[in-house]
Amino acid sequence: MKKVTLAQGSGGAAMQQLIAGLFMREFANPLLLEMEDQARIPLQQLATQGDRLAFSTDSYVIDPLFFPGGDIGKLAICGTANDIAVSGAIPRWFSCGFILEEGLEMALLERIVSSMAQTAVAAGISIVTGDTKVVPRGAADKIFINTSGLGAIPQELDWGLSRIQPGDVILTSGTLGDHGATLLNLREALGMAGELVSDCAVLTALIQSLRHQPGVRALRDATRGGVNAVAHEFAAASGCGIELNESALPVKPAVRGVCELLGLDALNFANEGKLIIVAARDAAEQLIAALQQHPLGRDAAIIGEVVTQPGVRLVGFYGIRRSLDLPYTEPMPRIC
Amino acid sequence: MKKVTLAQGSGGAAMQQLIAGLFMREFANPLLLEMEDQARIPLQQLATQGDRLAFSTDSYVIDPLFFPGGDIGKLAICGTANDIAVSGAIPRWFSCGFILEEGLEMALLERIVSSMAQTAVAAGISIVTGDTKVVPRGAADKIFINTSGLGAIPQELDWGLSRIQPGDVILTSGTLGDHGATLLNLREALGMAGELVSDCAVLTALIQSLRHQPGVRALRDATRGGVNAVAHEFAAASGCGIELNESALPVKPAVRGVCELLGLDALNFANEGKLIIVAARDAAEQLIAALQQHPLGRDAAIIGEVVTQPGVRLVGFYGIRRSLDLPYTEPMPRIC
Repeated sequence: MKKVTLAQGSGGAAMQQLIAGLFMREFANPLLLEMEDQARIPLQQLATQGDRLAFSTDSYVIDPLFFPGGDIGKLAICGTANDIAVSGAIPRWFSCGFILEEGLEMALLERIVSSMAQTAVAAGISIVTGDTKVVPRGAADKIFINTSGLGAIPQELDWGLSRIQPGDVILTSGTLGDHGATLLNLREALGMAGELVSDCAVLTALIQSLRHQPGVRALRDATRGGVNAVAHEFAAASGCGIELNESALPVKPAVRGVCELLGLDALNFANEGKLIIVAARDAAEQLIAALQQHPLGRDAAIIGEVVTQPGVRLVGFYGIRRSLDLPYTEPMPRIC
Repeated sequence: MKKVTLAQGSGGAAMQQLIAGLFMREFANPLLLEMEDQARIPLQQLATQGDRLAFSTDSYVIDPLFFPGGDIGKLAICGTANDIAVSGAIPRWFSCGFILEEGLEMALLERIVSSMAQTAVAAGISIVTGDTKVVPRGAADKIFINTSGLGAIPQELDWGLSRIQPGDVILTSGTLGDHGATLLNLREALGMAGELVSDCAVLTALIQSLRHQPGVRALRDATRGGVNAVAHEFAAASGCGIELNESALPVKPAVRGVCELLGLDALNFANEGKLIIVAARDAAEQLIAALQQHPLGRDAAIIGEVVTQPGVRLVGFYGIRRSLDLPYTEPMPRIC
């Protein structure tokens, strides 16, 4: 079976062959094929889409590489796309940096690259520049991927943390904790099957459905640290409090099962395809309706509100409030 | 001694503390401090500098982390800056993705981050967005860094591989192989001291000194694979031949020493602060003079020419031509 070799990261002929035979073939697009040291994107193309460039980066180190609902390649497109898309921009141009371990099976690399390429094409994203490093056996675990992404933010949009105010409500675009619970189930060999699937998805279309709706203040995708981490970011940036309504949180039964088994809270689990939205209260119902039009927003719900008293709290079934701390650490490393 | 923990990559409070206490402090700039999921760069700022966005990425996996002339942090700025700068753009906005191994000494991370920050500030670069992952002990070797960079290419510049033509000459901005020889000396414990120093440097100012000079066709910085790899890229893209003049190649005595000791060729060694320039023959002398005005271009020289007969050749001391193949692999992994 063919394996990745150190030569393929060395800058010599073996690397040229890997680039031409795999990356150029799978990611083929005019900007990439120019083969310069940098992609060159006409500013005119950006200017027709908006007035600010959105720029974000993430490295992906997830273990295992393949999981129900996705793989590291798909994740490396979805995660960075969503970090761009929550600004209101349409993610368009990506870079991609591979760190490969010597001995990685070529067939595995090809599956991952092909998954990246498919996810990117489906989302209208072009991988326009890249880099490949190979490290000796044992110096990395199989494969790490970095993607950085670009898109333009439409002039009329000003979604951001600074717009959050007391009286606003908090929405989610769907069920919480699916990605984290799926990975926990796999890694801890909990044996829960069937229903546990990562929600890993590009959210551009869902977010664009909000573009012409009034009342959106700020958007985040709730990844590492889950909804809890996002609620703390909202609270810290605005100086307001965030209160989440326990009975309103949409959580799938299988995810609830994992939580109960391990004594963990789905609010802290990573999602890879869920929005948390702060919105004006009088716009909320219409935003929920708009989200539910889209397959990725079917389970959209109002889950909380912004209040003046600082802090993040969970409002329980009998109206009892308890403080929701940001845990020092999440249950599991290498979740994304 | 304080060490990096898995908690610091988990999306919880420990990660927030690392980001606030180290990255935000060292990299502080207004775009980064907005704390959105993406940096937002006004297109107007780009448009005043050029008409095309230059976008490039590189991951840095060098071993050892510190070497004469630099460290992985400095390298992670220089390498990506130069990939942008060879387009004629001024590198301005960077992303930064860290992959850290659990147990890495915090003091080491702080030295590296501080070196990155210093190199960036000196080069006019802002790190505007970032990501941190921590993997369990043994899943990565200490620290890997990805940087992606952006700049705008001035409207009047059209440097690129497509402009290379027979009759052009090849220039270097200085001595060849310094970075590769320095790393080989360290890693193979050859014991050569003193003179061996990596040439790791940001080349923006040197390249900008060429901006108003006529006759520049294409620029590359000769990193992995050395001048030989760049010559092959020039040859492949243009369909022309590249002939390098053996007696004209500037190589420091200590680098020559490493080559002779190991039976290797400095043409294949990585550089981290050297330009290879294709230029119109009648402009060459003036370009050399312009380069030599700058401390990083003091040893600039004409080292070869573009000819019609395809292939890459070395012209020896008695005018004897031998074919210069691109080696299947470079002498050493993790050179950058």
